[in-house]
Amino acid sequence: MTNKKTYILLILMILPIISQLPQAHARENHPGPTWIWYPGDYEIWLSNKMQARRTERGAFFPPLWRYYSPYALVTFNKEFSVPETDTVMIRAEGECKIQLDGKMYSGDPEKMTIPPGEHSITIKVYNQEKTPALFVEGQYLKSDPSWKVTFEDKEWIDESGRASGQSGTEWQQVGSWDFNTAETLPSGFRLATQPQYTVAVQEEGAGFIADFGKETFGYMRLHGLKGKGKVKLYYGESEEEARSAEACETLDEVGFNGKQPEVYTLKNSKAFRYVQVRTEGGIELDSVSMQYEYLPLEYRGEFQSSDDLLNKIWDVSAYTMHLTTREFFIDGIKRDRWIWSGDAYQSYLMNYYLFFDNPSVKRTLFALRGKDPVNSHINTIMDYSFYWFLGVYDYYRYSGDKAFIRQVYPRMVSLMDFCLERRNDNNMMEGLPGDWVFIDWADGLSKKGEVSFEQLLLARSLETMSLCAGIMDDADASSRYKKLAAELKDDIFRAFWSEEKQAFLHNRVDGKTTDKITRYTNMFAIFFGYLDEQQEQGVKQNVLLNDEVQQITTPYMRFYELEALCEMGEQEYVLDEIRDYWGGMLELGATSFWEKYDPQEKGADQLAMYGRPFGKSLCHAWGASPVYLFGKYYLGVKPTSPGYATYEVRPELGGLKWMEGKVPAPEGEITVYCSRNEIRVTGAGGKGTLVFKSRNVPECRGAKPVKTGDHIYQLTIAPGKTYRVKYKHLK
Amino acid sequence: MTNKKTYILLILMILPIISQLPQAHARENHPGPTWIWYPGDYEIWLSNKMQARRTERGAFFPPLWRYYSPYALVTFNKEFSVPETDTVMIRAEGECKIQLDGKMYSGDPEKMTIPPGEHSITIKVYNQEKTPALFVEGQYLKSDPSWKVTFEDKEWIDESGRASGQSGTEWQQVGSWDFNTAETLPSGFRLATQPQYTVAVQEEGAGFIADFGKETFGYMRLHGLKGKGKVKLYYGESEEEARSAEACETLDEVGFNGKQPEVYTLKNSKAFRYVQVRTEGGIELDSVSMQYEYLPLEYRGEFQSSDDLLNKIWDVSAYTMHLTTREFFIDGIKRDRWIWSGDAYQSYLMNYYLFFDNPSVKRTLFALRGKDPVNSHINTIMDYSFYWFLGVYDYYRYSGDKAFIRQVYPRMVSLMDFCLERRNDNNMMEGLPGDWVFIDWADGLSKKGEVSFEQLLLARSLETMSLCAGIMDDADASSRYKKLAAELKDDIFRAFWSEEKQAFLHNRVDGKTTDKITRYTNMFAIFFGYLDEQQEQGVKQNVLLNDEVQQITTPYMRFYELEALCEMGEQEYVLDEIRDYWGGMLELGATSFWEKYDPQEKGADQLAMYGRPFGKSLCHAWGASPVYLFGKYYLGVKPTSPGYATYEVRPELGGLKWMEGKVPAPEGEITVYCSRNEIRVTGAGGKGTLVFKSRNVPECRGAKPVKTGDHIYQLTIAPGKTYRVKYKHLK
Repeated sequence: MTNKKTYILLILMILPIISQLPQAHARENHPGPTWIWYPGDYEIWLSNKMQARRTERGAFFPPLWRYYSPYALVTFNKEFSVPETDTVMIRAEGECKIQLDGKMYSGDPEKMTIPPGEHSITIKVYNQEKTPALFVEGQYLKSDPSWKVTFEDKEWIDESGRASGQSGTEWQQVGSWDFNTAETLPSGFRLATQPQYTVAVQEEGAGFIADFGKETFGYMRLHGLKGKGKVKLYYGESEEEARSAEACETLDEVGFNGKQPEVYTLKNSKAFRYVQVRTEGGIELDSVSMQYEYLPLEYRGEFQSSDDLLNKIWDVSAYTMHLTTREFFIDGIKRDRWIWSGDAYQSYLMNYYLFFDNPSVKRTLFALRGKDPVNSHINTIMDYSFYWFLGVYDYYRYSGDKAFIRQVYPRMVSLMDFCLERRNDNNMMEGLPGDWVFIDWADGLSKKGEVSFEQLLLARSLETMSLCAGIMDDADASSRYKKLAAELKDDIFRAFWSEEKQAFLHNRVDGKTTDKITRYTNMFAIFFGYLDEQQEQGVKQNVLLNDEVQQITTPYMRFYELEALCEMGEQEYVLDEIRDYWGGMLELGATSFWEKYDPQEKGADQLAMYGRPFGKSLCHAWGASPVYLFGKYYLGVKPTSPGYATYEVRPELGGLKWMEGKVPAPEGEITVYCSRNEIRVTGAGGKGTLVFKSRNVPECRGAKPVKTGDHIYQLTIAPGKTYRVKYKHLK
Repeated sequence: MTNKKTYILLILMILPIISQLPQAHARENHPGPTWIWYPGDYEIWLSNKMQARRTERGAFFPPLWRYYSPYALVTFNKEFSVPETDTVMIRAEGECKIQLDGKMYSGDPEKMTIPPGEHSITIKVYNQEKTPALFVEGQYLKSDPSWKVTFEDKEWIDESGRASGQSGTEWQQVGSWDFNTAETLPSGFRLATQPQYTVAVQEEGAGFIADFGKETFGYMRLHGLKGKGKVKLYYGESEEEARSAEACETLDEVGFNGKQPEVYTLKNSKAFRYVQVRTEGGIELDSVSMQYEYLPLEYRGEFQSSDDLLNKIWDVSAYTMHLTTREFFIDGIKRDRWIWSGDAYQSYLMNYYLFFDNPSVKRTLFALRGKDPVNSHINTIMDYSFYWFLGVYDYYRYSGDKAFIRQVYPRMVSLMDFCLERRNDNNMMEGLPGDWVFIDWADGLSKKGEVSFEQLLLARSLETMSLCAGIMDDADASSRYKKLAAELKDDIFRAFWSEEKQAFLHNRVDGKTTDKITRYTNMFAIFFGYLDEQQEQGVKQNVLLNDEVQQITTPYMRFYELEALCEMGEQEYVLDEIRDYWGGMLELGATSFWEKYDPQEKGADQLAMYGRPFGKSLCHAWGASPVYLFGKYYLGVKPTSPGYATYEVRPELGGLKWMEGKVPAPEGEITVYCSRNEIRVTGAGGKGTLVFKSRNVPECRGAKPVKTGDHIYQLTIAPGKTYRVKYKHLK
């Protein structure tokens, strides 16, 4: 714990570091050749590796759910034509068999000559250990996302040696990321690193405590090693944790025989701000530093306002989001370092307002979903299966990426089949053996019977299925899912909506609906758009603004609660909440946002969770929601059709004097400035609509705001153009 | 090609070599600790590795069907109690996490102390590259087949740090083989090797041709290497093939830089009898030898008779069978070296009369079946899915191994579901896109529409399902499958049985049954016991002994044809056929039996197949059927209840003066001698029944043959006892 002054100092130290990060935004549509693989397979492989890196006090601690594996043998195919002889280099991760126009090629795969004309090339790659992957580079023929791939091969030969069949094989479009040269092997992927140094060191007995000034993640380095002995490292997100050799969550112990190099870098990355270093035997060392490890991404979203506290909250949120955006979107950096679907779902949304990095969303969705058959919910959590569908829905809404939907749709169907088969006689889903019904960390929260919240998420998931079946041109499936969703929504209202209380009730056990109201179903119903105006007002008054309904203590569900309030125009109220809640964490010295925060808890109690004194993660993705809320509900930018083909800009000051910032969109950033008498918007691609209220008739040079309601005006925003509107703010 | 004299010489050379092989019969029920894994996973991994070793003229040539992979993360569990403190060594292939009685253990896994009492140990193992496997050795606690394992883990923790759920996880009994010490890692498995030497060398231009005297398999060794340059090796199962650098099926090319050791062993094993060795550049070598590579198995079956040719046929069959019994039962050793279900099915049967090695059958069944979901038939061949079921059926009949049935049953259900879903409106299976309907290599054989042979195999597969559902104590499923089988059999008779021709017709296309008769359905119907006496006689006369029905040219289908004739008492006729057919191959110099043999073909035509001059495999498992026929239909031994709990010995001389031999059974070998006036039988475990015909009243000291029909007698055989019966042979 540090006091407020220290915090301000720290923020000042962090900011320049954030802005110094290499800003290598990996663009998706690389025109040249790229490494390709079976869609999802590399992601599954990489996530298996990453998630097996968790340790608990030095012991290996892999995930609690099932692992999938890549197909060890896959077949790539491309039909193509070349206008002249092409000399092609073929490289594979694995052994490969090449057939050109059905004939086996046994020459040098790095120098294959392809004569002019129409061709079909088939390349089979086998790799038991890593993901089979392929790189092809010719002048004309190049491995790229247009290639097809299958894990089935239904080719056979007859007695005469003719290939007599290849039908029935299911081909998929290949997967890829940004491995764009023959030498950048997918299996060799490593996050970027750069050195970071301590800001303070306190000598202590047989060692010292080093402070890196803020939450960070990476590989410790030991400098000036001399002699033989052991170095022990106790990591702490807090100073208390680093000081507790007995109870810190992560530690390292390295033995040296005197022949070590002078500088030694630890093999495993850890999350910490403080490290306690102790030596045993005759070993000595001068100092420690670290290799900070990160995914190089550009901060495309920005936010500044007249309120410094909010600006800091945005900055620390962005840093929290960056620390947890790695090979995949993970929950937190100290403890699990796993991909949890419910946590990742919020990362997707925050990502759309910070990095807009589609590959990170796709990698995470692929890794979470794994393969068929489905034997359990994602992460074994029922709600987390549903968030996965919601993640697909939002990804399409923000990116407009139909190719991904086509890749993932078969796996959507099988996960939904799994869910639908688990419904009870009322067509609702209860927790069955093996299902974890999570909802939220909250005291006394019932998970029994038919929980209204779970049904609501299922309804939204069915709507996602309907949307995606449409993209797959499967009208029958689309209307079947639509019907299922509509029926379920009716059932939800019948079973759980209380006319008297004007709110959804929590659950129904053995056919009896409980009296209990919780916030979950009610707030999700709002931003799913399932309520009419009257119902919304009921929920707002009787649930969201009602202190007697159990309070939410996790930033996880605060995310949705504040979103629901913003949906209903409560931006001013929400800013106060943010100042209190996130400001409260900053007050306690947070340099990244936490897994859980209860203002009532005192001192070291703030660090405990799961029955362990330092069990709580102090850098948790779900703590970063202001990044999302500020972009979507204050700068007010969101797509109104997939991929920002059309979008809305609806700035809401929420009591601020002014704010400005950027929201990334597929074709560039949308820039918004808003004060009480001026709005400035610069459009990116697509057609935007600025919506705002004004006391007077607003003016804009070169464009004319159209009045669409009482004091409400709209202005169409063309790509790349800047609009400067003079108006008079009306709350 | 070699002439007859050469052949006799060769046989004389082979015999001593066969008998010199190390006879390390791996017993299954090792009492100590053994390496354990998820059932089928090691087998899948090992088969992936093995099947990717095929090369065609140096080029990598992996299988044409889908690969599965082991689960990378599995959880082992054992509930146990120890009477006193146990010190336990835990080793894993992979990283492991150990929990004793729910508490994480982070001490030295090689020295874990377990206090007296009841316990539950859970060990999670992660390995992305190899099969996760576990070895536990304490005085009381040992890893053995009683442990359970799962790939799912449905444990979770609540906010207080309590584990709050572990239900819903599907546990399986672990898999194992014979890795019985901590040091014999499953991933390190290698077949045994021993040196073999050339029997003749012919100098030829820039090299020489080496003859190893017989078909063999292993790693070439180059001796006395001096200088720099390339050594090229052209392998031949025939001398013609080795002489053809241009068309031989397999070859090697190794470059040496002058720094090589004097003896160099090639990295990949090959099948050959002859090798052409050529050098390029300044390289010189003195000679070649080889490391013969084999699975160490005891030849528990034996056969000798008054006919030397038959004895040689049995010996060469046994050698052929041994060459193709490797990590798995493979088709042939030169070309594919893959596991084909139809080929393996015959190997299982031959194995029961030669090695009786259950692990080889189980490994092969697991490897073929792979995992779920099922997207295609086994090897993509419809008949090969059915043979897989038949293989399970026979394995249970011979071994009585219910534990394996319980391990494999879930995968039986999913493969059968796949099949049943592919039925047409008549509840029959036609080839759908992606299905290869194979049946046999035969000119002009129609695979169109509803092929009666395929339906017959499906009916038998459904009977297998019914049997195994019974073992799983699922009476409902058992009767459901039984009903499906019975209905299908009725449909088969209605659709394909011709009263007029007293035979099954071949197929039905677009609702019209063809006139064509083929041997396949008819002969299988006999040994499946689907025909009554009159129908059997019809089939025998109108099909099996009718030369106008297209002849079978593959040893593959000869296997079943001769079996059907034996079933109907045509042992004498069958021996003549064997002398002609297998004797014909020996006449042409065979030292192992072939993939295909057509007596009409002349000279080098015998070597060609698949449009390639040396495409034919000269060592093919399905060529070894005499091993099976002699044991089952001449020595006449077969189980009459699972695992030889009861069995029959029904010797049939088939015109021989005398014969003697052994048939392996689970608890030992059953020894049979039979001449025209004496039968001697020594029983193994279980209750045997000797059945024979005699002109006179037979005599047996200490036992009394019981007359059961006209000149038919029976004698009960007790375990381990020898019975000597004096009788007068009656044909």
